[in-house]
Amino acid sequence: MSEMRTAVLSAGSWGTTFAKILADRGGRVSLHTRRESLAHEINTGHTNTEYLPGVHLPGLITATTDHAEALSGAEMVVLSVPSQSLRENLVRWAPHLTPDSTIISLMKGVELGTLMRMSEVIAEVTGADPGRIVVVSGPNLAPEIAAGQPTATVVAGTDAARTQAVQDAITTDYFRPYTNNDVVGCELGGAVKNVIALAYGMVAGMGFGDNTKATLITRGLAETARLGAKLGADPLTFAGLAGLGDLVASCVSPIARNRAFGERLGRGESLEEVQAATRQVAEGVKSCRSVRDLARANGVEMPITEQVERVCHEGLDPRKGVAALMARDTKPE
Amino acid sequence: MSEMRTAVLSAGSWGTTFAKILADRGGRVSLHTRRESLAHEINTGHTNTEYLPGVHLPGLITATTDHAEALSGAEMVVLSVPSQSLRENLVRWAPHLTPDSTIISLMKGVELGTLMRMSEVIAEVTGADPGRIVVVSGPNLAPEIAAGQPTATVVAGTDAARTQAVQDAITTDYFRPYTNNDVVGCELGGAVKNVIALAYGMVAGMGFGDNTKATLITRGLAETARLGAKLGADPLTFAGLAGLGDLVASCVSPIARNRAFGERLGRGESLEEVQAATRQVAEGVKSCRSVRDLARANGVEMPITEQVERVCHEGLDPRKGVAALMARDTKPE
Repeated sequence: MSEMRTAVLSAGSWGTTFAKILADRGGRVSLHTRRESLAHEINTGHTNTEYLPGVHLPGLITATTDHAEALSGAEMVVLSVPSQSLRENLVRWAPHLTPDSTIISLMKGVELGTLMRMSEVIAEVTGADPGRIVVVSGPNLAPEIAAGQPTATVVAGTDAARTQAVQDAITTDYFRPYTNNDVVGCELGGAVKNVIALAYGMVAGMGFGDNTKATLITRGLAETARLGAKLGADPLTFAGLAGLGDLVASCVSPIARNRAFGERLGRGESLEEVQAATRQVAEGVKSCRSVRDLARANGVEMPITEQVERVCHEGLDPRKGVAALMARDTKPE
Repeated sequence: MSEMRTAVLSAGSWGTTFAKILADRGGRVSLHTRRESLAHEINTGHTNTEYLPGVHLPGLITATTDHAEALSGAEMVVLSVPSQSLRENLVRWAPHLTPDSTIISLMKGVELGTLMRMSEVIAEVTGADPGRIVVVSGPNLAPEIAAGQPTATVVAGTDAARTQAVQDAITTDYFRPYTNNDVVGCELGGAVKNVIALAYGMVAGMGFGDNTKATLITRGLAETARLGAKLGADPLTFAGLAGLGDLVASCVSPIARNRAFGERLGRGESLEEVQAATRQVAEGVKSCRSVRDLARANGVEMPITEQVERVCHEGLDPRKGVAALMARDTKPE
């Protein structure tokens, strides 16, 4: 059992679930939220009803609205905020980081404009050596983990000792982390799967069958791996839990946000209607543009991502986007 | 439009659907069935109600109970029978094959005892040069294709001209074949996915969540690729439509036979009860043993296949089999 203290920022469904894993392993956790009412609920009722209804949180978790207090003395810092808000949050948080602390990213996205992965944004804003940054990614639907469903994940870092320390801090009877040193591959797998899951949702919403859906997953993973290979990732990462595993979970689960968002688009709702009706962020809606830009900047063809971006940002009818994907010529695989 | 005549043996759901594809492309098809009543229904009513309810079959398909008549003069011969019955059927059919005809296998299995793939059985029984044998495999749930849902597939052969001829004969607006020269990889992908889909069904039937299911698909594909690598397949085949694509379709579709069979086992029905209640063959129930034997003979670890075999043939409770899979140690991925 670990005695170390970890800060988790912030208390969304994945951040709160990750805090629970750390505490179930015996660690003390400071969980940051900007909302006084949520901090109060977590500290007195040990629940986070809005994000994890029905889940009891361990007493080792203490919530606070003061980020300096959360970060003070923390040996590990877990970052879990919407990808496009990481930089502005981290600028505020960075001065309070404990020197030499390990920084764990749960985020899956590519920053608009800079086209940086989350670990690159962290390194730039905090000045941390890349070895201090560890990425956790895999088929990790938070509500299932919070309910104690057996789940595997990947802990990726370039510093083996830190990576193993994170692995140790989050190994429980229901959560099984595997180490990997391919940070680039794990981050790209997570970022692109949000985009492919949007496309999967559209196809499902239009009533296509399982042959079509399985083909979309296959082609989606192929274009992810093409981008990864170009950016120096290990191709095998995409066949693993942080590639294929995460992609399948996010596509087939009806509770996964990006898939659910795409499904409403596929059923004919407008982008504005879907955005108004969904409270949590569907990361793929923003990331489809940055992933597309990253692919174009590196000369990589990503036809599914191109169509998703056109649907989400250029007003393309999802039906036309899917038709364009299906109409490609026959050729060697 | 092709003028060639193709024989399809026999008229199950996939064989009949494949005959429809050939005919929709303009080819004449002799479809073999042993049942007079079914031949009559196909020839007069243009339906195969038992296997493809609600589907109208093209007039270019002629059914016959006489295999010699079906095979006579056919330039292409499509074989679609349960894997373990191929040899005994083919011994009867082989004398009637047109010399130099192309033999297309739709079958997904490994023969018990000999541990041969279907193309190997075909080569042995008919004496055909391996270049004459072409394999079609992919995410191909027959009822969806018969309903005109857009579907992609892989046509694999070592003779490029024959492979392309098959591709041409089955390209329609709803069916898109991609060529590949990795016969071993395509056949193993198809054979092992039946086993993994059984395991997926068990996990689904026990009520596990999507994280667990996605992990099972990931690990299942990994053990398939390990076996393939050992037997000379191209590892990339398993990331394609005949590997990942077929596996995902067979796992997520509630109509897929092996998944449905496993799901009933997972819900607590006995093997005998499930077998009595299911009319069509779940190939994985037999293939799990031959795939396991093939893996052991080649020194390849296939933990999921091992557990499925124990459930299907050694009386192991599926709950214990799944628990054994989940309890493996944490380690590098």
